[in-house]
Amino acid sequence: MDVKVYKLEMSGPEDITNLEKLVNSGEINPKEVIAVMGKTEGNGCVNDFTRGYCTEVLTNYFSKKLEKTYEETKKQIAFIMSGGTEGVMSPHMTVFTQKLDSEKTNSDEKRLAVYSGYTRDFLPEEIGTKTMVEEVSEVVKELIKKAEIESIEDVHFVQIKCPLLTSERINDAESRGKKVVTHDTYKSMGYSRGASALGIAVALEEISLEDLEDSDILKDWSKYSAVASTSAGVELMNCEVLVMGNSKTSNSEYRIGHSVMKDAIDLEAILESLKNAGLEFESLPKKEDLDKIVNVFAKAESPSHGVVRNRRTTLLTDSDINHTRHARAVVNGVISSVVGDPMIYVSGGGEHQGPDGGGPISVIIKA
Amino acid sequence: MDVKVYKLEMSGPEDITNLEKLVNSGEINPKEVIAVMGKTEGNGCVNDFTRGYCTEVLTNYFSKKLEKTYEETKKQIAFIMSGGTEGVMSPHMTVFTQKLDSEKTNSDEKRLAVYSGYTRDFLPEEIGTKTMVEEVSEVVKELIKKAEIESIEDVHFVQIKCPLLTSERINDAESRGKKVVTHDTYKSMGYSRGASALGIAVALEEISLEDLEDSDILKDWSKYSAVASTSAGVELMNCEVLVMGNSKTSNSEYRIGHSVMKDAIDLEAILESLKNAGLEFESLPKKEDLDKIVNVFAKAESPSHGVVRNRRTTLLTDSDINHTRHARAVVNGVISSVVGDPMIYVSGGGEHQGPDGGGPISVIIKA
Amino acid sequence: MDVKVYKLEMSGPEDITNLEKLVNSGEINPKEVIAVMGKTEGNGCVNDFTRGYCTEVLTNYFSKKLEKTYEETKKQIAFIMSGGTEGVMSPHMTVFTQKLDSEKTNSDEKRLAVYSGYTRDFLPEEIGTKTMVEEVSEVVKELIKKAEIESIEDVHFVQIKCPLLTSERINDAESRGKKVVTHDTYKSMGYSRGASALGIAVALEEISLEDLEDSDILKDWSKYSAVASTSAGVELMNCEVLVMGNSKTSNSEYRIGHSVMKDAIDLEAILESLKNAGLEFESLPKKEDLDKIVNVFAKAESPSHGVVRNRRTTLLTDSDINHTRHARAVVNGVISSVVGDPMIYVSGGGEHQGPDGGGPISVIIKA
Amino acid sequence: MDVKVYKLEMSGPEDITNLEKLVNSGEINPKEVIAVMGKTEGNGCVNDFTRGYCTEVLTNYFSKKLEKTYEETKKQIAFIMSGGTEGVMSPHMTVFTQKLDSEKTNSDEKRLAVYSGYTRDFLPEEIGTKTMVEEVSEVVKELIKKAEIESIEDVHFVQIKCPLLTSERINDAESRGKKVVTHDTYKSMGYSRGASALGIAVALEEISLEDLEDSDILKDWSKYSAVASTSAGVELMNCEVLVMGNSKTSNSEYRIGHSVMKDAIDLEAILESLKNAGLEFESLPKKEDLDKIVNVFAKAESPSHGVVRNRRTTLLTDSDINHTRHARAVVNGVISSVVGDPMIYVSGGGEHQGPDGGGPISVIIKA
Repeated sequence: MDVKVYKLEMSGPEDITNLEKLVNSGEINPKEVIAVMGKTEGNGCVNDFTRGYCTEVLTNYFSKKLEKTYEETKKQIAFIMSGGTEGVMSPHMTVFTQKLDSEKTNSDEKRLAVYSGYTRDFLPEEIGTKTMVEEVSEVVKELIKKAEIESIEDVHFVQIKCPLLTSERINDAESRGKKVVTHDTYKSMGYSRGASALGIAVALEEISLEDLEDSDILKDWSKYSAVASTSAGVELMNCEVLVMGNSKTSNSEYRIGHSVMKDAIDLEAILESLKNAGLEFESLPKKEDLDKIVNVFAKAESPSHGVVRNRRTTLLTDSDINHTRHARAVVNGVISSVVGDPMIYVSGGGEHQGPDGGGPISVIIKA
Repeated sequence: MDVKVYKLEMSGPEDITNLEKLVNSGEINPKEVIAVMGKTEGNGCVNDFTRGYCTEVLTNYFSKKLEKTYEETKKQIAFIMSGGTEGVMSPHMTVFTQKLDSEKTNSDEKRLAVYSGYTRDFLPEEIGTKTMVEEVSEVVKELIKKAEIESIEDVHFVQIKCPLLTSERINDAESRGKKVVTHDTYKSMGYSRGASALGIAVALEEISLEDLEDSDILKDWSKYSAVASTSAGVELMNCEVLVMGNSKTSNSEYRIGHSVMKDAIDLEAILESLKNAGLEFESLPKKEDLDKIVNVFAKAESPSHGVVRNRRTTLLTDSDINHTRHARAVVNGVISSVVGDPMIYVSGGGEHQGPDGGGPISVIIKA
Repeated sequence: MDVKVYKLEMSGPEDITNLEKLVNSGEINPKEVIAVMGKTEGNGCVNDFTRGYCTEVLTNYFSKKLEKTYEETKKQIAFIMSGGTEGVMSPHMTVFTQKLDSEKTNSDEKRLAVYSGYTRDFLPEEIGTKTMVEEVSEVVKELIKKAEIESIEDVHFVQIKCPLLTSERINDAESRGKKVVTHDTYKSMGYSRGASALGIAVALEEISLEDLEDSDILKDWSKYSAVASTSAGVELMNCEVLVMGNSKTSNSEYRIGHSVMKDAIDLEAILESLKNAGLEFESLPKKEDLDKIVNVFAKAESPSHGVVRNRRTTLLTDSDINHTRHARAVVNGVISSVVGDPMIYVSGGGEHQGPDGGGPISVIIKA
Repeated sequence: MDVKVYKLEMSGPEDITNLEKLVNSGEINPKEVIAVMGKTEGNGCVNDFTRGYCTEVLTNYFSKKLEKTYEETKKQIAFIMSGGTEGVMSPHMTVFTQKLDSEKTNSDEKRLAVYSGYTRDFLPEEIGTKTMVEEVSEVVKELIKKAEIESIEDVHFVQIKCPLLTSERINDAESRGKKVVTHDTYKSMGYSRGASALGIAVALEEISLEDLEDSDILKDWSKYSAVASTSAGVELMNCEVLVMGNSKTSNSEYRIGHSVMKDAIDLEAILESLKNAGLEFESLPKKEDLDKIVNVFAKAESPSHGVVRNRRTTLLTDSDINHTRHARAVVNGVISSVVGDPMIYVSGGGEHQGPDGGGPISVIIKA
């Protein structure tokens, strides 16, 4: 397998100029594109239409290039859009390509391997439950195998796009006499993200399925995955799963590593994640180290108690700016100050993705 | 001179509980208080009433303790309130006390010296002009002398509260046939802050008065002071000036240092400022170093072109959140990640205070 | 009884200039002031400090004038601050004075009567429950009698300031083995407002206590009072109650009336409320009618389903602006367009105060 | 000519379901569509991408239906998107169709006539100048003729989409030694909207070209058009003009009328506009009158002094919510309260479109 990763600047949610250039020059073969992860400049909350806008433009573009329908295109390529570029975060997309028939020419070194797949469609009453956790964990395990990642320690990032409840879906479940986890459609996003993250945690043996109760979801924050990044979208009823890790059979020029930020200003964890990805430095990385970084993927979240390093913050009491927006601004700023580049991927809403108030941070380097 | 510095948590803009405790215990003598610098949890923009609220409560409190009128109290103590605690910034106040008759017992070491004073009242037509620059520079020079700071290299922080234009003041000037710098009262705040900062720059020989034109104000961003922090308020017509530096004649347990952040994510400058204040460490400070830090005072500002490290940001195109709010969240986050404490003072609106998009950072340590 | 009502412009939450003028001129006797209702220019949500700021300034002012302590002053005068002056709403305060020994000189006509009082302190576990409803209803009934309002039909406005749950209060209840209605302190405000409003509804026989279950609170929106206006504050554990109606024994120059808006754009209900207060006009009021209006007091609320006149709105899906802010802008705008004055009192958060998405509207006229 | 007007609900900026239904049923012939005016649910300010998203989806849809390229489609149909559905405004689109060969069968009555066209491309240095005013006025006059609207009194709505300045365009002008009206790209939108509106005013003889100076643009607010509605967009260098009025030669079932709101709460002007469109009622319209209304098109704007009916508002001092958002919430609310439907078109940014703080209101009825 040969995996390539491209980070491309965007001048707006509809801007695919840089992608077009690379496709036109032959650098990117549209048929090999398996995923696009975008940071778009909306508010990252309910009424953020920049995610949909960007997906719309990309789907139309690839649909033409692949000569496939809109629906087929969406099945072939995972479009994962995260809204919210607060602070100095620079809007961009990361394009992943995968060549399956590439022969291994490298040494024995472990290299970036990526595989994407899907769960079955969920019933509305399953969203945010232990049933969802179980189904997700099975698919994650399967994709790890397909990616030929030998050990769960070599998995460094699992991105999931998961469904949410709508009024229609709730009515559907209730008309069949079933109960849903919540009647609040906004909250259902949290439940779905949380259950998906716990599914990853089970697959990676971070927690055991036996110890998990339905009631732990969105409650017991000590249960989490250190490599999960999940986001909910209205357009699907299953989970789209993207597994990334390092594999001996990969022929990629890229490697991935990760760490877990304990809170939004955890400088140490950022340094650890860089080392985990393969950079070698004392104390702080140098320019030549930083040049090897392709992108950083992190989750930002406000602590449920609003306290950071024993200090009161106003994250949860600000009625003008949603706390996820504050959190993204900070986490992006702190990581940027280390890697010297504000164009990194920081996404909000991290239920069961890292500890309360913290989150996973994954790094891809080219070296 | 003996100067002491106290950083006190606040649970809201009206919360002076921690101040009261220290006064009641005898640790703080109200008569020795010369300045209170607060970070209050408003939006830091036009309709931020948390600054006034906090000042109101403090003035009433000290008025009783000092047995002085409201107006006399305001003349005796500089109340400098900065609104906006975005990201993880923790609301707090820093109280400065000064004992003038303290005998020098220390060694020859330079120690924290603080002195406050006033310019004359400005005419509306002088606000934001070279005349203001000149008057401010004279007062700053005088206060440096009074503080017995031997060299301008030993000045590390100059805080100024300056006036702004209102409709009445503009009318007054024009009725006398005079021109004001702007008819936009909001913009006049920037002009006044900018001219005040340039006054500091002249006093500290960072720029020369001869080279400065009226038209450079809010235009030529290459002219700035590396230690200025200025804020505009409607309640005064003169400038309140607070000069801080290190002096051989000071008997304080505290020292101050500074550096200049080139942009909002300038990690290196933060480390420099800590070293400049007297902390000794390689690469990154350790816990025992950080324990010596009392507070950090920094200016946050969006670059006028919106670009950070050659990357497009959405700082200036976000119509939902003012760019100063984004900037404060980032700068506070980055500094917090180094010093391990989100309770630091980061203020917005840094015209001619550090370079375009950057700002001064001053650090007070107790050691 | 002689009741007087003054509507005073404010240039900011701290501006009591117009009040001072009337006190200095002898028009207002501070000893006769029983309530001040203010519209202050914050966001009307969690971090709105303009309410506290205004209360602080007023309490200090009256404390001096009455030669009473801060606490005694707060007991004597009801300070009811409502934040949020969205749209064209103009910040102002309404001052109510009451002279008890005024002899009836008027004809038999019913005139404005106002009476204020308090419930007992509630235990944390009682807040938002049927126990609270019952206690509030008893006090409201008592105050109606004291105001000498002969019939419940003559009650047109009941304002209540009620307590909320804090972490400490929740812990207190739980340490005694008691359950509270919610662990979410923000939500507890809604429960407390809702139960208080239902207490008014019981007192005015709009609903019967027997038909009410604890579980109806914040659920069964068909149960409501048509004259209730309640707001929660952290500083008290009891309810401050202000009853307004018309009484034959009142000697006031003022009268009050009310109606209920079915939704935010219910023009007809506004016209009804004016007529109910005593204005006589066909179709639309004329200038001479409008001149008699002293102030209008209305509640604004987004419908729980987000739909207005069968049309989808974005009230509940806007993550940048809280729905209460949208609602206040609209209700104030619509009422202003009828009465020709944007300086009216529109307050948000109307649980069980009028029907879902609507709210009571009361009008005081001088005639 | 036969003109038809359809108002269609949207569940999001990408929702064209209701349009598809009418096209599929044969009710709307895509070839006859000349304009779509949409209210989309963004913030209506700089970073509102809902306008572009909706235009993208519509252009792709019509491109397929018309079998034309993306660019040809954009030339054939005017897509006019206005962002911001504050308060209770309901997102929707209005589709205008025009059948030119329809024979006049009606009586002599004047009926709705619509015609669209273009100015030449402007040079950057012409944007916002008197040259632009003149060119716009010529095209408006021409379109009035083409629409066979006999008299300028019969013109009731002129919608223009106009260009703005970007950094590239400014550079282009300056490289040729030309001056642009402003270096602030955001402000250039106001200049372009203002000059376009004044072009309409000249064409309709509301002002005379001779009396107009370049310096009047964005300064002399007494010069305005009572029927102009203009919006700026980055994607064009000319003006797209849509003229609407009543003509004897039109065979439409629709009629149009207008009035001018003096301020955001001008109830009287709203009633006048309904009567001007042809509704006959005393005082307030009845249900059967309201049923005839197809849509209302109004401009909302904050007064430059922030004062409404002699009352201070916080429109211009709110740093959390842009004043255009407040203004739209109010104007939509007030009109909705009269017409009984919150699904109407209220757009912000009304330079020289109606008087300072007010704006034109046009009404289309089917009767």
